[in-house]
Amino acid sequence: MSGIESAWINGEAQTRIDVHDRGLQFGDGLFETLAVIDGRIMHWERHRARLMRGCQRLGLPEPPREQLERELQTAAADQPRAVLKLLYTCGCSLRGYARPDDIRAQRVLLRSAWPAGLERHSPAGLRIIWCRHRLASQPRLAGIKHLNRLDQVLARAEWQDPEINEGLLRDQDGHVIEGVASNLFLVRNGVLHTPRLDNCGVAGVMREHLMASARAAGIEVMESCMDENDVTGADELFLCNSLMGMRPVARLAGQRYETGPVTRRLLSLMNPESA
Amino acid sequence: MSGIESAWINGEAQTRIDVHDRGLQFGDGLFETLAVIDGRIMHWERHRARLMRGCQRLGLPEPPREQLERELQTAAADQPRAVLKLLYTCGCSLRGYARPDDIRAQRVLLRSAWPAGLERHSPAGLRIIWCRHRLASQPRLAGIKHLNRLDQVLARAEWQDPEINEGLLRDQDGHVIEGVASNLFLVRNGVLHTPRLDNCGVAGVMREHLMASARAAGIEVMESCMDENDVTGADELFLCNSLMGMRPVARLAGQRYETGPVTRRLLSLMNPESA
Repeated sequence: MSGIESAWINGEAQTRIDVHDRGLQFGDGLFETLAVIDGRIMHWERHRARLMRGCQRLGLPEPPREQLERELQTAAADQPRAVLKLLYTCGCSLRGYARPDDIRAQRVLLRSAWPAGLERHSPAGLRIIWCRHRLASQPRLAGIKHLNRLDQVLARAEWQDPEINEGLLRDQDGHVIEGVASNLFLVRNGVLHTPRLDNCGVAGVMREHLMASARAAGIEVMESCMDENDVTGADELFLCNSLMGMRPVARLAGQRYETGPVTRRLLSLMNPESA
Repeated sequence: MSGIESAWINGEAQTRIDVHDRGLQFGDGLFETLAVIDGRIMHWERHRARLMRGCQRLGLPEPPREQLERELQTAAADQPRAVLKLLYTCGCSLRGYARPDDIRAQRVLLRSAWPAGLERHSPAGLRIIWCRHRLASQPRLAGIKHLNRLDQVLARAEWQDPEINEGLLRDQDGHVIEGVASNLFLVRNGVLHTPRLDNCGVAGVMREHLMASARAAGIEVMESCMDENDVTGADELFLCNSLMGMRPVARLAGQRYETGPVTRRLLSLMNPESA
């Protein structure tokens, strides 16, 4: 594939995987998308913690820590800026949903170029829309970053306009949850709110980092149940993910938002980057 | 893998697939499990129709019909009994949920041996349990056989006892939907009921075939919203899928069921097999 530089499976340079891998057969696995800056994997400890939570939730054995970290370090070394995507699958099995007694999980690591024009923690406002697609409700999978991503694929297929940066997703009950590939924050009366992720959504690493940074700076942070009106009526709005960091929202559908004081303060906390 | 005889990708003998395939990355695709008997793919037209419905629902291009059927025929030819599993994925793309403008879907075909001891449409009663795992609610994916199968994987992981043949799944609201790898039918007052699949579940090919056969034989058939009590209080209970055909339930949790007149009549309609 153009744009992909390298791929490894279990540490070996390799671009093809056994078709019996349960990642392909059932989406039986997890993934992490990692920003590499100056050869360093940003927020690795938070990514690793989420991967471990995902393993527990899915009943997968934990990856061998030292080996995995060595593989990631090798892929990140000497990269001024790059993206690593780590897939961690349940490995191969015979046909059928039953997992093998002896799970041999597989690590698939992909390194790609840093996206053109993507500046981390940029103050440039995003233009976003509401997606019509509604997220599935499944408390058992909520928060973790598993490989069953048809919700995101279907939602992302709703727009082609390159001027639109992201789409916001609601759940089956109309609660606002997240962006297709980002988490959402809003500010109301000086308090930072981000949607609760009890029934669906991904608990993003940058979301966690921002919540911790905001709390450390004395900003009140709440995980809230929110609907469309809470978002459209917010004083400030921003999105975040591991690659772009945090980015203010300038336009949601027809409505304009200013980059307000809480967003500006958090942006200044993020720059220069505190990993 | 032991137990797997052969694998093809887009008609070429091949056991490894590009790690950038969106089937692996996101579960962006569909599958069908096909019974081969005497070199013939059973109920292929129904499988094909469901695959096409899946393509429409996911926005995937339809597979090239003649080519696909030729590949399936080649894999099925001279096989007294075998199982074919066809995966149909969105093909490769760069990182990110956005599909490429030019989707090059991939056909992955796996042929495996017929499961030892599996007799089609056998009158031998099954022993089944209730799964604790609840299916995700997602009307947009209900009925089709897509590759996001963590629900089934997690449910199937609830039992190891080989004496247990299947587990029944409820949705987030407690409605009974299906077995982990089968559809459910119950008989009450001579009427055949099977769960509605508006919010989740797979519309099985054998389910469709049984509904059509029952109706043709003058048996009333209803797709119903059902809860646990409807199942435990049923006069007769049976499961079906493309491999085992239909099979009466003999025990659900502690409760015993008799193979009643409607089940027996349907079993006789299925034997000798009318494809």
